[in-house]
Amino acid sequence: MVQALVLGAIGCALLLMVFNYISLKSLNEGTTEMAEIAKIIRDGAKTFMVAEYRTIIVVVAIVAIMFSLFIEKTSGLTFILGATMSSATCIIGMRSATYANVHTANKAYETKSIGETVKIALMGGSVSGLSVQAFGLLGLLLIIMITGGIDLNGTGSGFIPVLKCNPTIMWLTTYSLGCSLVAMFNRVAGGNYTKAADISADIVAKVRNDMPEDDSRMPNTIADFIGDNVNDVAGNCSDLLESFVATIVVSLLIAASIAESNTAVFQATITYPLILAGGGLLGCVIGLFFTLKHKSGKDPSHELNIATYISAASVILIGGIAAFFTFGQIKLYNSFILGWASPWIASILGIASGVAIGKITEYYTSTKYRSVQGLAEIAKEGSAFVITKGDAIGSRSCLLPILVIGLSLLGSGMLCGVYGVAISALGMLSFVATTVSIDAFGPIADNAGGIAESCHLEPEVRDITDQLDAVGNTTAAIGKGFAIGSAAFATVSLIFAYVGSYSVTTTPILNIANFVVIAGGLVGGALIEYFSALLTDNTIESAHLMADEGSRQLKIPGIIEGTKRPDYEKCIHMATKQALHKMLIPSLLALLIPVIGGLFFGVEFVGGLLIGATIVAIPRAIFMGNSGGAFDNAKKHIESGGLKECGKGSGPHKASVVGDTVGDTRKDVVGVALDIFIKTMSTVANTLAPLFASFHIF
Amino acid sequence: MVQALVLGAIGCALLLMVFNYISLKSLNEGTTEMAEIAKIIRDGAKTFMVAEYRTIIVVVAIVAIMFSLFIEKTSGLTFILGATMSSATCIIGMRSATYANVHTANKAYETKSIGETVKIALMGGSVSGLSVQAFGLLGLLLIIMITGGIDLNGTGSGFIPVLKCNPTIMWLTTYSLGCSLVAMFNRVAGGNYTKAADISADIVAKVRNDMPEDDSRMPNTIADFIGDNVNDVAGNCSDLLESFVATIVVSLLIAASIAESNTAVFQATITYPLILAGGGLLGCVIGLFFTLKHKSGKDPSHELNIATYISAASVILIGGIAAFFTFGQIKLYNSFILGWASPWIASILGIASGVAIGKITEYYTSTKYRSVQGLAEIAKEGSAFVITKGDAIGSRSCLLPILVIGLSLLGSGMLCGVYGVAISALGMLSFVATTVSIDAFGPIADNAGGIAESCHLEPEVRDITDQLDAVGNTTAAIGKGFAIGSAAFATVSLIFAYVGSYSVTTTPILNIANFVVIAGGLVGGALIEYFSALLTDNTIESAHLMADEGSRQLKIPGIIEGTKRPDYEKCIHMATKQALHKMLIPSLLALLIPVIGGLFFGVEFVGGLLIGATIVAIPRAIFMGNSGGAFDNAKKHIESGGLKECGKGSGPHKASVVGDTVGDTRKDVVGVALDIFIKTMSTVANTLAPLFASFHIF
Repeated sequence: MVQALVLGAIGCALLLMVFNYISLKSLNEGTTEMAEIAKIIRDGAKTFMVAEYRTIIVVVAIVAIMFSLFIEKTSGLTFILGATMSSATCIIGMRSATYANVHTANKAYETKSIGETVKIALMGGSVSGLSVQAFGLLGLLLIIMITGGIDLNGTGSGFIPVLKCNPTIMWLTTYSLGCSLVAMFNRVAGGNYTKAADISADIVAKVRNDMPEDDSRMPNTIADFIGDNVNDVAGNCSDLLESFVATIVVSLLIAASIAESNTAVFQATITYPLILAGGGLLGCVIGLFFTLKHKSGKDPSHELNIATYISAASVILIGGIAAFFTFGQIKLYNSFILGWASPWIASILGIASGVAIGKITEYYTSTKYRSVQGLAEIAKEGSAFVITKGDAIGSRSCLLPILVIGLSLLGSGMLCGVYGVAISALGMLSFVATTVSIDAFGPIADNAGGIAESCHLEPEVRDITDQLDAVGNTTAAIGKGFAIGSAAFATVSLIFAYVGSYSVTTTPILNIANFVVIAGGLVGGALIEYFSALLTDNTIESAHLMADEGSRQLKIPGIIEGTKRPDYEKCIHMATKQALHKMLIPSLLALLIPVIGGLFFGVEFVGGLLIGATIVAIPRAIFMGNSGGAFDNAKKHIESGGLKECGKGSGPHKASVVGDTVGDTRKDVVGVALDIFIKTMSTVANTLAPLFASFHIF
Repeated sequence: MVQALVLGAIGCALLLMVFNYISLKSLNEGTTEMAEIAKIIRDGAKTFMVAEYRTIIVVVAIVAIMFSLFIEKTSGLTFILGATMSSATCIIGMRSATYANVHTANKAYETKSIGETVKIALMGGSVSGLSVQAFGLLGLLLIIMITGGIDLNGTGSGFIPVLKCNPTIMWLTTYSLGCSLVAMFNRVAGGNYTKAADISADIVAKVRNDMPEDDSRMPNTIADFIGDNVNDVAGNCSDLLESFVATIVVSLLIAASIAESNTAVFQATITYPLILAGGGLLGCVIGLFFTLKHKSGKDPSHELNIATYISAASVILIGGIAAFFTFGQIKLYNSFILGWASPWIASILGIASGVAIGKITEYYTSTKYRSVQGLAEIAKEGSAFVITKGDAIGSRSCLLPILVIGLSLLGSGMLCGVYGVAISALGMLSFVATTVSIDAFGPIADNAGGIAESCHLEPEVRDITDQLDAVGNTTAAIGKGFAIGSAAFATVSLIFAYVGSYSVTTTPILNIANFVVIAGGLVGGALIEYFSALLTDNTIESAHLMADEGSRQLKIPGIIEGTKRPDYEKCIHMATKQALHKMLIPSLLALLIPVIGGLFFGVEFVGGLLIGATIVAIPRAIFMGNSGGAFDNAKKHIESGGLKECGKGSGPHKASVVGDTVGDTRKDVVGVALDIFIKTMSTVANTLAPLFASFHIF
């Protein structure tokens, strides 16, 4: 019955998604010039996706074969299913975003109404958002329906018969790992692509020549537009799909690991996560449908907030009713201190902390508040001060979000133990369709503005897209807060599940006051720093190469004069090649580190490794995101006249541009990749825990 | 018998210290001008110390009274003893350094011999180094001799009788905490002092005017000279004294916590750390005496290496003999897998990892290697690239040192359990007298160069002091590596001791797969970021105020023309005031965080807090130190002509100066304070563990 209901919710979501996609595609693309630029962006994005998936398919195939051969025979297929679901989402999201950008620009051009324009951008975003939650859940439900759910007494048919692995659990974790791997590749490649293009454009314009930013004579500009889609749409979709799937899976794993003889409670604990996920999806369908259909006002952020509030409220309502019917009639575990309401309140705690983290992020990164204004002010003392102050803002901004996470962990843990922690994470992600829709709104609006600028549309049009872009920046910051918060919860739950999966004691124990575990913890933390360095260095290298290409083209007669069109395709091709070339090693690191650690030093060392990586990655990700956001907005604050007598081109403005360039790599390459890095490592560890537990060298 | 031997070693060390101090004071100070500048520096340093200790005495008195009233009556006195020993070391170190600087300059001036000059600088440093190890050990030995050693059955006479605290253990930990608190104050105040002076001089010279660095017309320069002594001598001495004391104390605590019914092994395990510490001190006396007395060559780093090698070799020799006699005749714990040699080999592991970390640090921060050269190269693309690349170098440089620490933890843990980890830490710190002597060599040489410059001595003199300064930079980098490595080991041992002190199980357990502990871990990590932000913001603020004062003075007629002496004292006074004003909150944080955490959420939450803080602080400290060092040396590389066609004042040079200024706060304020922050928190937690275990709100 529950499965049918969830399937119904998925059906509704897919219906709305298809409807929005078709509505979008049928719109007018505006002038020939607009259509032309839109086509270059769309084709560039497609070329990148095709090239990227050529590599991903090979890696996925190899890993799938390894799983089927060495771990459990069907797990290779479930792994492929996960990778497929994630890929499908990315492709659909990219397609809709690269249509929505030009349609948004054109809607602004035709109607001059901000209310109408918001809807087009959100409609484009909703295709991504709905597909994330619907596809992620669909794959999972398929596995559960085919296998008939988790059978606690099931035994696997692995190559190594000593591995005590439960087949359903193995299928679920490998499904999640499939999603993880694709997300890992997308984030790493997307970050490299977008920032190599962006930074190289900056070097060519500002360091080597004296040209305005985003000048269309520079061959690097269009690659920059494509980059926004590659990272902020495809990367973000697969990242959050992975978080969502991992959180459901981990709730099921924890339900299985705490299951005592009480079958009724076990059935309830494995059912509730599915209801919450499906109910949340239904809530998002309602919220998005209402927002897109109602008569819209002039305040874009108000429109977006409506979607969020309706979705969140629906989840809370559905979650409460479901908790009552699922848990109300049975004798619960002792750890459920508030009875049937315990998991429900845990899920609300998750939602509340997601919102709180978003608001805190806004405080530290928006031009409306003291932090960014102070950063702009200090730009008068030169770029060294901008960087130092920005570093301080980034570091300072870690405390409150992590206190929120910590308190929420304590609260949900006290309510219903480790299960509560997992449900809290799921609460935060249960309306991911809406949060991703709003996230995707940002790059669509950004691209629309770029198209309006390149096609020299009237200032009024640019004005509308600028307003949308500003709203998009804030929502992006909040979205990053949500992504980090949910990754923190998801990873902690994954680690609990990991420890639970190999522990023989009733209470799973990972003793960090043990030299093997603490050594793992320290090394795990160091790996986060190393991974950050790797991504940063890769980005600089790619940017360097692309800048050299940009400079080369600018020397060709006619280009700097604006009489000859630069070879955009060459730069697009370079960005693609560099991104693909540089995505392999960092992504494989996430797969291989737990494997090597586990085979050498055993299951407890890996436990320490995951803990250390998580404890370091969360503040680092917040630091990267918020310092980068603050740098970006301090520059914008100065540009919009926030600093007396210091406009564009002044000393303080130049200092703020240095900050912005430093922040680019931080927020869009490193920060967004850290959470998927820890989630992937934890998922790999979860999948292979039985292996490490039976075999290691030291 | 052992106690008499250790007392003998302390006696030898104090004798050599006094002898060196007297020899140094009797030397000639050179020209009147030199004597005058030296006096300003000496008086400024003294003024700072007097003002600082006025605050420290109040805080120490309050904390001591609290301890005596609420925890255990004598512990207030042992706390004061610790604070006194640490303070004595700082005062002696500062005095000798502020004599040695001018004598070093004068020796170079009189003899023009680099060999002779090295000896004076090292003689000055040796006073600091010997006093660190001798005073630290003396206080401890006094406590042990008066109380007759740890009596496992002793019971305390606390205000709260339910607190099950062993009085001797309480006295030892409060002694260690006294050292900790002074070190915390010194590091925080010293960092603020030196960098506010340094950075303000940079702003005035480079951003606001177009003057050369270190121009004596700027009123901020002399404060900068004093700052080197305040941070690199007093701060470093108290920091390493604390590490040394904490490591011995924690070895004793662990010996007590693992003690089974076997009294003979227990006696051996609590005796060995004292022998190792005393034997190490004797080794340092031999090493330093030989280096100062033998006929010296022309390579300063060779001279310094001789001292290190002799000291380290003596420790290894004495440690081996001592291990044989201490452990050879008794039936050992099962965890001692290589018999009597287990603790000895663990200590060698510690020494080897200290050296390895130092070498790795050198690789990432010296102009001789690819990292810094690449950083200088990329300065051609502007300051944003310098910062991004420097960030990448800092992050990348964390991996190897932490792998060394991790492997060494694994190795020493396998050899003889948690006791092995503590002994490994002690091994690294057993010849701290020599490492501190060499650390103190750096600021002495730096000051000597400054005096030579200000007094317009011949280029030959400046050449000698420049060579010494360059060697000092490398040794400083290595010294920082040692400080971080030893702090990592010391903190891990402290956490083990902490868990051991409240655990009721045979194997002490801190289960991180528990929501309370992991919440503590996440919050602990966030606190490190917050603490870093606090120190950074404080430094910027102080620098800003001092820069405004510098600008104000430069506008007074006659000063910029060089006909009127600027008011150096005003700036010195400001630096002192700012440093003292801003040291209180960060230092008290380290005391209060574990107390608040423990009283609210209990002993396990604090355990998580310490783990999280340690796992984040170690890579952060390495990052700060190494990125800062790389920035500094990239600038020097460009200045010394390492980049073709780009000298002083060129675009790349300016970009590298931005990096250097950003690095200043990182390496000399934040990086060096992080290790003392985690050690202080861990020591506080250790002291109050019985309290948290009996009482907490949630």
